[in-house]
Amino acid sequence: MQNDKAAASVEQQIIQLERQALERWCQGDPSGFLEISALDVVYFDPFLEHRIDGLRALTEYYEALRGQVLAERFELLNPLVQLVGSGAVLTFNFVSWGEGGEEHRWNCTEVYRRSGSRWQIIQTHWSFTRTGN
Amino acid sequence: MQNDKAAASVEQQIIQLERQALERWCQGDPSGFLEISALDVVYFDPFLEHRIDGLRALTEYYEALRGQVLAERFELLNPLVQLVGSGAVLTFNFVSWGEGGEEHRWNCTEVYRRSGSRWQIIQTHWSFTRTGN
Repeated sequence: MQNDKAAASVEQQIIQLERQALERWCQGDPSGFLEISALDVVYFDPFLEHRIDGLRALTEYYEALRGQVLAERFELLNPLVQLVGSGAVLTFNFVSWGEGGEEHRWNCTEVYRRSGSRWQIIQTHWSFTRTGN
Repeated sequence: MQNDKAAASVEQQIIQLERQALERWCQGDPSGFLEISALDVVYFDPFLEHRIDGLRALTEYYEALRGQVLAERFELLNPLVQLVGSGAVLTFNFVSWGEGGEEHRWNCTEVYRRSGSRWQIIQTHWSFTRTGN
């Protein structure tokens, strides 16, 4: 029971971290993600020809996007956290709505690693969700 | 040094597991992946409108593809394993060539969890890699 409670608390903490970083992301601020990403973070999205390796390269990539990503609102659909020792795998479908009401749908996998009392992202994978159209 | 050796050995083991499952996958046989996936596996690919949750649902999805995926050859580009306690995060770019020589490029994230002496997949995320075209 105690373990269940502890696990539920970690799950909430991870989802909260992600949500806070996404709030900033959707206002054009990539720093929320950069501040919680580890030095050895790796990263995929649909606009890249190769995986990005490491915080320095990810920072360069994100800084070029600063001020450009704007969403009115978003939802994390069905977020799930799988705990693996000092790691936590967060998966969710993500939907955001732009200023013109246009909808964007994504698949996301984040792997967090506990580092002392903090959790840091070591792997991010964003991809487009198939839409019914 | 001993730790480095142990880590290198686990990394090789994980990449080998993935490669063996992919060999079978590229011959139309999804059982290689199903045999090493955990009951609580979750799964994304570009053809789905939502995450798949659980081995039963993944089995149903994969069985419908049995015999349909055929590739002449494939390569794992730059596979990387990040160890997190009893977990291992494998990421790579994947390229396969069909019978007509057509090329397919993917991003892949697999999260493995150690279960006794075995490693099992608890998360799979496949997405298309952007190509230069």
